[in-house]
Parts: sequence; structure tokens; C-alpha cells
Amino acid sequence: MFSNLQCKLSALQKLILLTDGSVTTLLEVITGKPVTVSTLVQRIVKADHEIAELLEIEEEDSLNYRVVTLRNIDSEKPLIYAESYTPISRLQKEFKYDLMKADVPIGNIMQERKIESRREIEKIEMIFNDEFNKIFDVPYHVPMLSRTYNIISNNMVLIRITETFPLTSFLRFNAY
Amino acid sequence: MFSNLQCKLSALQKLILLTDGSVTTLLEVITGKPVTVSTLVQRIVKADHEIAELLEIEEEDSLNYRVVTLRNIDSEKPLIYAESYTPISRLQKEFKYDLMKADVPIGNIMQERKIESRREIEKIEMIFNDEFNKIFDVPYHVPMLSRTYNIISNNMVLIRITETFPLTSFLRFNAY
Repeated sequence: MFSNLQCKLSALQKLILLTDGSVTTLLEVITGKPVTVSTLVQRIVKADHEIAELLEIEEEDSLNYRVVTLRNIDSEKPLIYAESYTPISRLQKEFKYDLMKADVPIGNIMQERKIESRREIEKIEMIFNDEFNKIFDVPYHVPMLSRTYNIISNNMVLIRITETFPLTSFLRFNAY
Repeated sequence: MFSNLQCKLSALQKLILLTDGSVTTLLEVITGKPVTVSTLVQRIVKADHEIAELLEIEEEDSLNYRVVTLRNIDSEKPLIYAESYTPISRLQKEFKYDLMKADVPIGNIMQERKIESRREIEKIEMIFNDEFNKIFDVPYHVPMLSRTYNIISNNMVLIRITETFPLTSFLRFNAY
């Protein structure tokens, strides 16, 4: 899965890219501090052809589009940037409410609501995109690590998430 | 959850005790090497009163009892000792076959069989038990860290697992 990455990653970076558990829990243990969500975007969008195919829904179906950063509560510096798509029709009423009121990590919602699922990693990449360098406040030459995975429940994609962080983050525990 | 532990744990130990993802994946990234299962015990037992209550089954119901160690393929030294109980009646035929043919990590079976689940940690403890010190080949004064969690699928406990490792293991990445 790492074959297209031409550089050595830290064990911690691999862990964040490969875990099938809650990323929030992982970040809380890594940093030793509570992690909170800052919602940058939260809106209902219509599925275009590409995302409709990926999620196995119809074009024009309603999606919840959510962009957040995860950060320690005592810091403004983002740990991870996460973009997600959720087909509205697949959300239980309570989950929908939690997701839309924002600022709650998805893993926490799922645990609270006792939602059974599995996670399937679709791709892991190294990307260059100045926008991320601004968000993370890192020099422009720093590439980003990114992974896209699906949270599957009742045999359907419930949430498709892309998580991104700088190659210079998570080189070791308590140092990011 | 750590309130009864009167000592400082490494971030890595906390991660192993708190993760809600696959422990095998976690160990593979931590050690940088493939992890394999060695089956020590694998047999069908009848549920006694205590385990029947915990699993919400009837006394005398059949359970698959499995004791394994997880270790790196190039080493005889166990990383983790794991004991599990699975109500036979709750196993899909294919899962049952995989579980009983042994030597496959449970996380891998669940991923392969696309089983949706959630994990609920029940307790985390520090224990003293000479048997573990022998298994891990560590001095007798070394306490063990142990956690018990349930893998829940279809709202029922599919597997109840207790994982144990020495307090002197996993102090940092690549050193255990």
C-alpha cells in the first residue's frame, strides 16, 4: 500500500495511515491530551457523477459534506485535516443530528450510538497542495500524507473520509 | 479507566490498551515486522455461570475457548498473550471455520469476512501472575498489564478477549 511513497515514514505516521480504529483515540494517546474538532465546512451538497459512483448512490442524491480539523484543546495548531462525505439517506436520525450539530468526532458519535461498522482503506498518497501548507502553517516545500477510507455499515458506505497531515508531523510520540 | 493503575504507562502501552482497532495491525506497525499467531489452546468448553452472564448466553452453552500469543514471525518471544471466548451459536459458518483452523489473527478474519462490529473495553488492570512471567520470560517481580474487551456484532458479544503483556514491554517503538 505504500509502494508509491518514495520516502521513509515514521512508525507513528504509518499507524495513523493504517489504523482501522478511531483516529481521535489514536491522536489523544499520541499527544497525551484531549482532541477536539473544529468544523470548517458543514453543508448539504448534491452528489456529482464521481462521488455517486464511489458511494454507490444516485447522482444528485444529498450528501453531508464536512471539513474539520482535529486539534488538541489547548492548541490552535491542527493535527489532522479531514474531509468527509455522508449519504444523507443512510444516516439514522440520531446520527444525522449528532453529525450536523458538528464539533463531535465521528468515532465518538459511532461509539455513543453503538454503530457497528468496518473500515476499508482505499488509498494512501503523498500530495502537494499549497492550501494544506497554509492550514498547517508549514513551509511550502513540505508534502502532505493523505489517506482515504470508507466506514461501512449495513454493507453500505456510511462515510467516506480523507485525512491529511504534513510529512513533517508525527515523527515521534509527543512531538508533532 | 486508568485510575486503579498506580504507575505511569508509556504512550505506546496506553495505545495498545485503549485502541478500538486491530491489535495485530498495531503490533505490525509498532514492531515494523509481520505478526503471527501461535495457538496454545483451542477447544470447545461449556459456559459456566460467570461467563454465561457476561456473554448473555445460557449456562452449558458451547464456547470456543482460544489462547494464543502474537509474535513477530522472526522471533519466539511473545508480544501479547490473548485469551478469548466465543459463543459457538453466534458464529457464522465461515468465521467458525477460520477461527478453529487457528493461527489466524481475529482482526484479519473479521476483515476478510467483512464482519461489521464495534469494540467495547470492559476493564484495564495491572495483575501479578507468575505464569505470565514464565510465558514472557521476564523477572518475577514484573507486573502485567491486561485489558478485557468485547467485540460486538449484531448487538451480541461475538468474542470476549483478554490481552496481557508485561509492564516492561512497549516502552517505545521498535523496543519491546
